[in-house]
Amino acid sequence: MRIAVDAMGGDNAPDVTVSGALAAAREWNDTTVILVGDAERLETLIGKHGARPSNLEIRHAAETIAADDEPVKAVRRKKDASMVVAGRMVAEREADAMISAGNTGALMTTGLLVVGRIRGIDRPALAAMIPTVDGVGVLGLDLGANMDASPEQLRQYAIMGSIYRNKVHGVSEPRVGLLNVGTEAMKGNELTKAAFPLLEQAPVHFVGNVESRDVLNAPCHVLVCDGFAGNVMLKSIEGTAAVVFSVLKREFMRSVATKLAALVLKPGLVRFRKNMDYSEHGAAPLLGVNGLLLKSHGSSDANAIKNAVRQARIAVQNDVVQSISTEISNGSEL
Amino acid sequence: MRIAVDAMGGDNAPDVTVSGALAAAREWNDTTVILVGDAERLETLIGKHGARPSNLEIRHAAETIAADDEPVKAVRRKKDASMVVAGRMVAEREADAMISAGNTGALMTTGLLVVGRIRGIDRPALAAMIPTVDGVGVLGLDLGANMDASPEQLRQYAIMGSIYRNKVHGVSEPRVGLLNVGTEAMKGNELTKAAFPLLEQAPVHFVGNVESRDVLNAPCHVLVCDGFAGNVMLKSIEGTAAVVFSVLKREFMRSVATKLAALVLKPGLVRFRKNMDYSEHGAAPLLGVNGLLLKSHGSSDANAIKNAVRQARIAVQNDVVQSISTEISNGSEL
Repeated sequence: MRIAVDAMGGDNAPDVTVSGALAAAREWNDTTVILVGDAERLETLIGKHGARPSNLEIRHAAETIAADDEPVKAVRRKKDASMVVAGRMVAEREADAMISAGNTGALMTTGLLVVGRIRGIDRPALAAMIPTVDGVGVLGLDLGANMDASPEQLRQYAIMGSIYRNKVHGVSEPRVGLLNVGTEAMKGNELTKAAFPLLEQAPVHFVGNVESRDVLNAPCHVLVCDGFAGNVMLKSIEGTAAVVFSVLKREFMRSVATKLAALVLKPGLVRFRKNMDYSEHGAAPLLGVNGLLLKSHGSSDANAIKNAVRQARIAVQNDVVQSISTEISNGSEL
Repeated sequence: MRIAVDAMGGDNAPDVTVSGALAAAREWNDTTVILVGDAERLETLIGKHGARPSNLEIRHAAETIAADDEPVKAVRRKKDASMVVAGRMVAEREADAMISAGNTGALMTTGLLVVGRIRGIDRPALAAMIPTVDGVGVLGLDLGANMDASPEQLRQYAIMGSIYRNKVHGVSEPRVGLLNVGTEAMKGNELTKAAFPLLEQAPVHFVGNVESRDVLNAPCHVLVCDGFAGNVMLKSIEGTAAVVFSVLKREFMRSVATKLAALVLKPGLVRFRKNMDYSEHGAAPLLGVNGLLLKSHGSSDANAIKNAVRQARIAVQNDVVQSISTEISNGSEL
C-alpha cells in the first residue's frame, strides 16, 4: 500500500510531517509512505532522525500552497504544489491515499479538480468526528465542503458516512441522524423536510431528526447536515467549550484555596479537555471523491500525522471508496 | 399602561404567573397587570397572597393551549384560549403588551394571525438574548420563528434587532453581525452572501460576519441569522455547556480530595452556570408583529414573569413597535 503525505501542509510542516511519516513507516512495513514536498529540505530533516526506512520515499514538489491562498486559484495555478502533486498521485493510482494538514479549501478543490468525484455523487463532503461524552463520537458531514446542499446530497452524505463508519470504525449498523431543530418528523426548514423521506428510504439505518443540543450525548453514529449548519454547530460546540474552560481557569485563580482545589481537579479536567478537542479525533475524510483524501488538523503534531496514516490504511484495506461507488451506482439503477 | 399575562401558559402556570403578576403590580403602580385565564382558579390563587392590588385585573378565558398542541390548529380552534384572548387584547389595543410562557409555536401563530404583522415586514422573528462572558449579551434573531429566511428578511431582522437593543437596552449604536462560517465578506451560503451587501446598506451599524465560535465573546450586540441556523447555534451552546458541567460534576465526585476541592469552587461555578443559562436572560420578543408579544421561558418562575413585565414596560415606554414600523416604512419609500 502507498500513502502520500503532503509534507509542506500544516502549521508545523515540514518538521511534524517528516516525524509523523517516519513513525508510520517504521510501524507498518507493508506500507510505503511518500513525503511530497521540497526534496532537499525533506532529505535534511529525515537525516536528523537516523537511518531512513526503506519504505519511506520522497517525491519532489517545488511549490507550496499557503494557509491563506485562495483555494481554487492556488490549485489551478500551482501545478507543482505538494498538495496538488499528492492529489495527482492518487488520481493516477500511484498512491492509494493522501493526507494533508494544509489549506482545507485547497484540499477540497484538489479533490474536485485533480482527483474528481465518484460517478453519481453530486458533491463531496467533509466528514469529521465530533467527540462525544461516551468517547464513541459522531461522524458529522458535511462540515463545510459545500455551504448549501440539496435533499439528494444529504441522502448521499448519509450513505457515504454510513459506509465510512462501518468500514473504518467497525460500527456494524451505523445509526444515521439528520441535524434538525426538533425531533418530530415534520420539523425543520425546507431542506430537512424534503430530505427526511429520502433518508427513510435510503440504504442506511436512519434514526430520524437529531437536535444539536443532544449531539455530544452521541444519539447517532453519523449526523448529516448542510455544510453551513454543520459548521455553525461545530464552531458553537468548540467556542462554548473554550469559554467554559477559560472561565474555569479564572475561577481556579481566585484565591489560594481555589488554586489548591484546581491542583486536585486538574488531571481529570485536562483529560476531559483533551477528549473534547476535536483536533485530537483523527483526520477528516473528504468523502465522494474518487480516491482517499484525508484532512489532518492544521495544528497536527507528528502523532496526529501518524494516526492519519493509520486511518488511511484501514480505509484503503476496507475499500471505502469502492464501496461508496458501488452503493451509489446501485441506488441510481433503482 | 396595561400588560396582559397569559396566566395559563408555562410549565408552572398558573401558580408562578399569578405570583409574578402580583409582584409586578405591587412594584409598578402606573401599570395595570391583567391575568388572562380561568377566573375562578386565578381568584383563589390571588386570595392566598393577601389583598389584591387595585392595578391587578383578571380577564376570564375558558380554554388553555397545551405545550404539545399543534400551534396553528390550536390558535385557530381555541378562540377562547388564554393566549389567544391576550393576543386579541393587544390587537384591539386593550393591552399595550402581552407575555406568555406557553407554547412558543402557538405564540408565534398568535402574533401572525391574531395580532398581525407590521406593514412592510415579511415575517416576524423571535429574538432572544444569548448570554456572553462579559454579561452584555447578544440579541440573536431569528432563533426559530421561521426556519427559512430570505436576504431581505435578514435585513429586516437587523433593523428590528437594532431598534430593540437601542430602545430596550439603551445601546446607542448597536453593532450588528451576520452569523456565518468565516469572517471574510465572501464567505457563506447563498443566503448570507446575498444578505451581506443588503446589510451593508441597511440603516444599522453592520460589523460584518461573525462565527458561531466567537458569539460568547460578544463580538456584536445583534446577531442576525435564519431560524434554522440560529436554533442550531443556540442549542449547540446550551448542550455543550450542559455536558461540560455534567462532566465537571463527575470529576468533583471522584475522591474525597476532589469533593473538598469542589466545595471551594462551587460558588463561582454556580454563579457562572446561572449567568450562562439563557432562560435567566429575560423574555424573548417576537419582533415584527404589530404589538408587543414577549415569550417567557417555559420553566419561568415568578421572578422571570415579573422581569418580563419589566421588559414589556420599557419596550412600551420607548415605542419599540412604532419605531420599527417607522423605520421599515422609511426604507420602503427609498
